[in-house]
Amino acid sequence: MPLSPRSISRSTIRRLSGYLRVVEGLERNGVATVSSRELSRRAGTSAPQVRKDLSLFGSFGKRGLGYPVDGLRAALTRILGVDRDWRVALVGAGRIGAALHAYPHFRDRGFRIVTIIDSDPAKIGTRWEGTEIRTVDDLEQILSEESIDMVILAVPAEPAPELARRVARAGVGAVLNFAPARLELPDDVIVNEVNLARELEILSFSLSRRSGDEAAPDREWR
Amino acid sequence: MPLSPRSISRSTIRRLSGYLRVVEGLERNGVATVSSRELSRRAGTSAPQVRKDLSLFGSFGKRGLGYPVDGLRAALTRILGVDRDWRVALVGAGRIGAALHAYPHFRDRGFRIVTIIDSDPAKIGTRWEGTEIRTVDDLEQILSEESIDMVILAVPAEPAPELARRVARAGVGAVLNFAPARLELPDDVIVNEVNLARELEILSFSLSRRSGDEAAPDREWR
Repeated sequence: MPLSPRSISRSTIRRLSGYLRVVEGLERNGVATVSSRELSRRAGTSAPQVRKDLSLFGSFGKRGLGYPVDGLRAALTRILGVDRDWRVALVGAGRIGAALHAYPHFRDRGFRIVTIIDSDPAKIGTRWEGTEIRTVDDLEQILSEESIDMVILAVPAEPAPELARRVARAGVGAVLNFAPARLELPDDVIVNEVNLARELEILSFSLSRRSGDEAAPDREWR
Repeated sequence: MPLSPRSISRSTIRRLSGYLRVVEGLERNGVATVSSRELSRRAGTSAPQVRKDLSLFGSFGKRGLGYPVDGLRAALTRILGVDRDWRVALVGAGRIGAALHAYPHFRDRGFRIVTIIDSDPAKIGTRWEGTEIRTVDDLEQILSEESIDMVILAVPAEPAPELARRVARAGVGAVLNFAPARLELPDDVIVNEVNLARELEILSFSLSRRSGDEAAPDREWR
């Protein structure tokens, strides 16, 4: 039985996204079917995990025949919601915003940055590849007029929570947050956080443990 | 009993990183102790999850007294390996590389980008805030001479796998990969992947499901 959206974990969605990338590669190479074993190997997970993840969304052909690559690609595209275009507003035209605006793989997946919003008077009215940078004073109006589906929030920590509240009040249902600040938003707004320092902390955690610096565990913290 | 590094999941490390941010905030505000309930609320998880995560790394004071904020901050800093400086090489001086180089929160956590490497002759020899951009031809030599602990790989998909192999062969133990390509590296190299399109897919997945477009589940994929 397919589960409700809330009960599907982010790790599962991440893996589905990985499977999509694998089957796209296979399709480009003319491969017609793929086993859960081969798919798991290329996606860096296990075959039982692949079968479990995919079974959440429907039934599959006969055991031992593998998945049809084109059918799986179409299904994953639909499941991940990347079979359509999404209208994205970039809030924050700093260095991170510039990098995200230039990132080619958003467009490949149907994420179209249709408007850019900033608070810096020196930037407002200028254009990035034809898209005008507009003032944050008009945030709500712009989000509404442009029928924005998602906001990428690429601002410093300090203004982020209030900007996110304004975005939510304007009726936008999803925020990708690059600000190192926790956003408290209503439950019907989906928030995904990218914390770049945290991504390096995953490495430092593992390197520290491995180097033996942590040979004596922290048994007592007081 | 503390677990080996391999058995601690990335989700756990992510949450530990979140707890550290919370207790740092509490410490700045002069708070001396924090309950698992309050910590979980601020970190966006549950109290049992907080207790479970922290118990992996040692024992705690008496039930009902809460965690001492300063002790918890010190322990988390040590556990995450951010109680020391790490020498980081940025490989790729494009837009993503520029954004990462300017990102202030790496330095706050002890991640110091001490060298920048690129393949573009127009960039080699120029400087970003005093750090010279050097040629990828000398990659192995630079990583070794500069005693690099981690590499941030911010290059296009195509050259990424081979560059990562060269990084691993040069003895660097950790790679943060921004290239939308899967890296196949020896088990003793820790790889963490940041796929920005995937972060938006988590939003499109949830928005699609909620909008009712997926009211009819994919029961049959053939």
